[in-house]
Amino acid sequence: MNQDYIKPNDWSIIEEGFNANHVKASESIFSIGNGAMGQRANFEEHYSGPTFQGSYIAGVYYPDKTRVGWWKNGYPEYFAKVLNAPNWIGINVTVNDEQLDLFNCKTITGFKRELNMKEGWLSRSFTATLQNNTQVQVNTKRFLSLDLDEIGAIQYQITPLNNNATIILEPYLDGGITNEDTNWDDKFWDTLKVNQEGEQAFILSKTMKTDFHTCTFMESKVFLNKAPLSNTPKCFTDSNYIAFSYQAQVNKGETYAIHKFGGYTVDRNHPKDKLIAAAQNALKKARTLGFNKLLDAQKQAWSHVWDMADITIGGDVKAQQGIRFNIFQLNQTYLGKDSRLNIGPKGFTGEKYGGSTYWDTEAYCMPFYMATKDQQVARSLLEYRYNHLEKAIENAEKLGFNNGAALYPMVTMNGEECHNEWEITFEEIHRNGAIAFAIYNYYRYTGDYSYIPEKGLEVLIGIARFWQQRATFSKDKNKYAILGVTGPNEYENNVNNNWYTNYLAQWCINYTLETIEKVDTEYQSDFQRIAKKLKLTKKEMALWKAVADNMYFPYSKKHQVYLQQDGFLDKELITVSDLDTSQRPINQKWSWDRILRSPYIKQADTLQGFYFFEDQFTKEELERHFDFYEPFTVHESSLSPCVHSIQAAKLGRMEQAYTFYLRTSRLDLDDYNKEVHEGLHITSMAGTWMSIVEGFGGMRVKNNTLHFEPRIPKQWENYSFKVNFRNRILKVNVTQKQTRFEMISGEPLEFFVNDKPLSLQKEQLLALN
Amino acid sequence: MNQDYIKPNDWSIIEEGFNANHVKASESIFSIGNGAMGQRANFEEHYSGPTFQGSYIAGVYYPDKTRVGWWKNGYPEYFAKVLNAPNWIGINVTVNDEQLDLFNCKTITGFKRELNMKEGWLSRSFTATLQNNTQVQVNTKRFLSLDLDEIGAIQYQITPLNNNATIILEPYLDGGITNEDTNWDDKFWDTLKVNQEGEQAFILSKTMKTDFHTCTFMESKVFLNKAPLSNTPKCFTDSNYIAFSYQAQVNKGETYAIHKFGGYTVDRNHPKDKLIAAAQNALKKARTLGFNKLLDAQKQAWSHVWDMADITIGGDVKAQQGIRFNIFQLNQTYLGKDSRLNIGPKGFTGEKYGGSTYWDTEAYCMPFYMATKDQQVARSLLEYRYNHLEKAIENAEKLGFNNGAALYPMVTMNGEECHNEWEITFEEIHRNGAIAFAIYNYYRYTGDYSYIPEKGLEVLIGIARFWQQRATFSKDKNKYAILGVTGPNEYENNVNNNWYTNYLAQWCINYTLETIEKVDTEYQSDFQRIAKKLKLTKKEMALWKAVADNMYFPYSKKHQVYLQQDGFLDKELITVSDLDTSQRPINQKWSWDRILRSPYIKQADTLQGFYFFEDQFTKEELERHFDFYEPFTVHESSLSPCVHSIQAAKLGRMEQAYTFYLRTSRLDLDDYNKEVHEGLHITSMAGTWMSIVEGFGGMRVKNNTLHFEPRIPKQWENYSFKVNFRNRILKVNVTQKQTRFEMISGEPLEFFVNDKPLSLQKEQLLALN
Repeated sequence: MNQDYIKPNDWSIIEEGFNANHVKASESIFSIGNGAMGQRANFEEHYSGPTFQGSYIAGVYYPDKTRVGWWKNGYPEYFAKVLNAPNWIGINVTVNDEQLDLFNCKTITGFKRELNMKEGWLSRSFTATLQNNTQVQVNTKRFLSLDLDEIGAIQYQITPLNNNATIILEPYLDGGITNEDTNWDDKFWDTLKVNQEGEQAFILSKTMKTDFHTCTFMESKVFLNKAPLSNTPKCFTDSNYIAFSYQAQVNKGETYAIHKFGGYTVDRNHPKDKLIAAAQNALKKARTLGFNKLLDAQKQAWSHVWDMADITIGGDVKAQQGIRFNIFQLNQTYLGKDSRLNIGPKGFTGEKYGGSTYWDTEAYCMPFYMATKDQQVARSLLEYRYNHLEKAIENAEKLGFNNGAALYPMVTMNGEECHNEWEITFEEIHRNGAIAFAIYNYYRYTGDYSYIPEKGLEVLIGIARFWQQRATFSKDKNKYAILGVTGPNEYENNVNNNWYTNYLAQWCINYTLETIEKVDTEYQSDFQRIAKKLKLTKKEMALWKAVADNMYFPYSKKHQVYLQQDGFLDKELITVSDLDTSQRPINQKWSWDRILRSPYIKQADTLQGFYFFEDQFTKEELERHFDFYEPFTVHESSLSPCVHSIQAAKLGRMEQAYTFYLRTSRLDLDDYNKEVHEGLHITSMAGTWMSIVEGFGGMRVKNNTLHFEPRIPKQWENYSFKVNFRNRILKVNVTQKQTRFEMISGEPLEFFVNDKPLSLQKEQLLALN
Repeated sequence: MNQDYIKPNDWSIIEEGFNANHVKASESIFSIGNGAMGQRANFEEHYSGPTFQGSYIAGVYYPDKTRVGWWKNGYPEYFAKVLNAPNWIGINVTVNDEQLDLFNCKTITGFKRELNMKEGWLSRSFTATLQNNTQVQVNTKRFLSLDLDEIGAIQYQITPLNNNATIILEPYLDGGITNEDTNWDDKFWDTLKVNQEGEQAFILSKTMKTDFHTCTFMESKVFLNKAPLSNTPKCFTDSNYIAFSYQAQVNKGETYAIHKFGGYTVDRNHPKDKLIAAAQNALKKARTLGFNKLLDAQKQAWSHVWDMADITIGGDVKAQQGIRFNIFQLNQTYLGKDSRLNIGPKGFTGEKYGGSTYWDTEAYCMPFYMATKDQQVARSLLEYRYNHLEKAIENAEKLGFNNGAALYPMVTMNGEECHNEWEITFEEIHRNGAIAFAIYNYYRYTGDYSYIPEKGLEVLIGIARFWQQRATFSKDKNKYAILGVTGPNEYENNVNNNWYTNYLAQWCINYTLETIEKVDTEYQSDFQRIAKKLKLTKKEMALWKAVADNMYFPYSKKHQVYLQQDGFLDKELITVSDLDTSQRPINQKWSWDRILRSPYIKQADTLQGFYFFEDQFTKEELERHFDFYEPFTVHESSLSPCVHSIQAAKLGRMEQAYTFYLRTSRLDLDDYNKEVHEGLHITSMAGTWMSIVEGFGGMRVKNNTLHFEPRIPKQWENYSFKVNFRNRILKVNVTQKQTRFEMISGEPLEFFVNDKPLSLQKEQLLALN
């Protein structure tokens, strides 16, 4: 744990007391989003201290030219930058001719931020004494509407406490923003038009190169003691900025307030020349409701989300807060409404990583969205990859593969690879396996096979072709090897025979062959269409099979474990517990070569395979591999603790499972990896959900049937979660003494608990001791 | 071979006929230099076609900020860019109001370039018909003086052939230059002052960040039919440009000419505020001599160089031209006059690679400079590294090593690492071994042990400490492994147990221990000083010894060869001859990952070890390794063919040795690797010298004695070379029938030919059939 200033609370994230050193971390943690846009929790008023300004629009990126000292053939032409978008939240505040700036006040007392996750809003309050000795009380509230997803709303209230004051509130739009990560001071946005109409303002801008047209807009209204004022503001504009200035004489104790609506309309949803009209339309809806009713609707909308997605934990407020924070942020990032979007690893909370789609989506996020949303959402996520199949084939061709072999990109916005480290881009090819696994997993969970003959099989064939071509026959081993890869553990690069990758490759081929047989039998016309389109031949399938049947897996007889890769045992096997804490995190303390030759594992690698394919290994094998690898694992990837929590729970090691759970669920709240200021780890948050449902709840799907093996950490009184399994809503409530299953809705359900068959009708409740 | 437009000639490089497609290649090939500065063979007059402008000053570089998409801990802060320097060669030519531009003439006939290597000058002549139908004959001659190394001289003559013409000659200095490789349009030079004094002009500028102050200067004089004209030129200046304009009416058949002296004075040699005075001083010397006498001195100076360094080859003009081109370019790059300089891999012919010093200096260039110069030159090269020892220790500390372990940089200008690819910077650590080997090699060749107790031993200890710390004890192998390295074959990255690296590490430790013992015995006070300074202990030496004694070497029993690295036999072992030629060079045709998992070898790796340590292996072992590895070697490094030529000669495979010789000696002339337009491969040129002297001549030093095993390719009538061995100048002349040895100067010498002892007095000649 690296910080502990967040107050424990069941439903809210709370910071009390102003500390400039926490500002960047809090800007990440208190981020808000609504799936269409999101923003860091930057202050509305000017702040001259260290800050990381960020406002992001889903699907809007910049293809920044790949610039490396030493070009490697095959590098993509660009890296997709997550773009900081024009700022619409800004409200400059002047009190008796002094600009309010929390970095420059004499005193700040009663500072409090609250991110109310239940209702979906962010608030801030404080009492500040300015340099001119005027003392003011400020209260703000802000949210991004789930209902009107182009609209955000701000209420900003200021009360002079010790004397009368001339106060100017100056809401503005600023198109002159840059990215935090621009090394070259590049501009990414062109402002096309700055426009005022009454108390509305609009900035039309477009991203450079990608030409995403966006209208950033605002409308404001001021109030004195809750009574609307009708004074016309002054308007200031320049080439990419527009502000309204509302001046008022405010008596001591009176409250001057502004309601500001703002947001973006984008050309993904509207014609380019109708963006202002669309903005006016959105503003009209917001104005008609007003701030308070829009806020009521927000509470309602979040209540619907929570109704299905909430997980309760009794007796452990930090654990409760952690899981809700994870579920909240996932829903802020992706709601499944737009199949052109995906789940960016930082969501709307920072710029790092670029691109919106990683293997995280398939490996970590699918289960959460399958179980807490309509199954169409998960299907959309699969279709996203189907829609990118052609580009995955082109990507493979660039690297020298042929015959329709597909290599999905490591990072993408539109199907094209947009990451440029050779050891990742070209070598971290296990991502292809996770994409195939998600197709299998979707069918396993939802029972909806229709996706496979319609679309999924084409993806599987492209992936099987890739693996067959990527494998190398080693005469020396008389087996197929896979050379030069990076596994999930990115602290190894360019290794041979990464067990996880080899296993996944074998599985992909076998699953594809099996699926071909089934589709050929049960969906003949689909099969014929696909076989013709892809020129599939028996001969090539025989080649695939030869690779799968003769895949090499590095194994240590001495340790009776599969080796993470060839040569793992040559390392100096000093466990993490014997590593001085001053050396951690190693990714910040050690040079890259030292990390590479160390035995330290960034995240589950062999154990990731045991997670995906647990049916294919005994519990003893799992235990042996867990005991061998976990001691070398530094968990410096956000995706690591959740898998370990699930595995530890499965092994009945509840203390360890609980520790990993806290680490995954409070990774950002407690800043385990010393990087929360850069943004949150969104995709791993779905892993947190898994660590409760699959880890503690022991939920699995086997043979079309739900299974549970409920366990509960001793620190908890109880926990509960709901899942949507094939349109049945089942609530599971686990206490130290019993487990209750409740069918909230849907058809009768047969399921297993600790391998014992049970069944439930709608609204029926069952308690097991 | 990729081009063959260079005319075979014993002493000159000649191009005939103008072809715009050859311009960039010829700009590289016809480059001139004098150790202190150098330049690509850009035209003096304006040229609007594709061109790569380059003029370089020794020791002047720019520390360009390291900018990578994904930072790795340990990366140096900067990459040293070889800087294009202000242009002083330019002479704009206007003929009847039309600018002369070879890319825009109606016809060009009789175009000829000549780089006269014997005398050290570059000439160009052509007849051009301009768009305005004026036909002119142009003859130019240019050289960079070896005697006055701040001075270059140009003679530019133009004769209207078909009518009278108004001709303007406009010599200029241009400080507004940029680098070809700037991705970001950065400026690297600040112009401080543009100054005119009579017919002299000066631009004072300084490099950004490094603050290298430079005065670029010129002085001109025009002539009509060889008679000096005294018309005062017009002068034009702007912020970083200055030109003189000499206009003349020139009758048909008359020759208008300009002599331009120019060059640089730099603050490495003069106080910053005396650079103009130094330039005036240099110009005065040049003016006093005049163009022709300065040219005579140039011929004289090159004659001295050739006297010692020339290699003659009879009956094979292409081979003769090749070796002289190599010797000429080496001497243009580095003459050993300034111990602060080194031998940049592209010399003064391009920007690529950055930095001036690679392991090439120690591994390839030392033998050439030891044998063709005074031994002080080689000692200077060693001292260059001694002077960087502290920075090498700092560099190792950055990567986590301690106790005075030294890791020399992969690329450097001032001792700091300035390259930023993790797989090279952090992993291509064998460079450390070459630096130790050069110390051994210097003593072996020169017999001068004094360097070792004075300085060399400290370097050896730093290196031994590094290897001990860099090795990892593998319990699995019960041996020391060296994990995560890149060998000389850069087509493998992050491999374990690269045989060459492991062998070199073992050798370094053993040689250091042996040297410590000798110095301790024979130079006690030196030893005590060093042991105290470096806190050397018996205990740590025991640790080194344990590593050396228990080093692991990957070996294949089946093939009876050492394996280049662990896992080599897992590759698909298809030989280069079975690779379709359309796929080559693979570094231009294949993605990086495909190269990495292929068996293809960029340059001698295992065989480089057999070259360094040939006494430790039998000829049969060499043959087996040659036969195993050469078929997979694509020789896409310039440093590869020479080592293979030497090894093939040793094995008596003269056809193969000859083919490799042509490839190394004519690598750039014939552009084998399709990259000559980027500049020449200077350091590998020393390898060409080795392939004659060590390969065909079979020269070795064993037990303080010279050995020869002369062989001659059947394509040659004879060849000869001279070596300076311990202040004796010995000339060796090999024909198909006999070998003659001639002592040119020095004390009597005992030596061996084909293991038979012989001896020679001064001026004595010995012929063996």
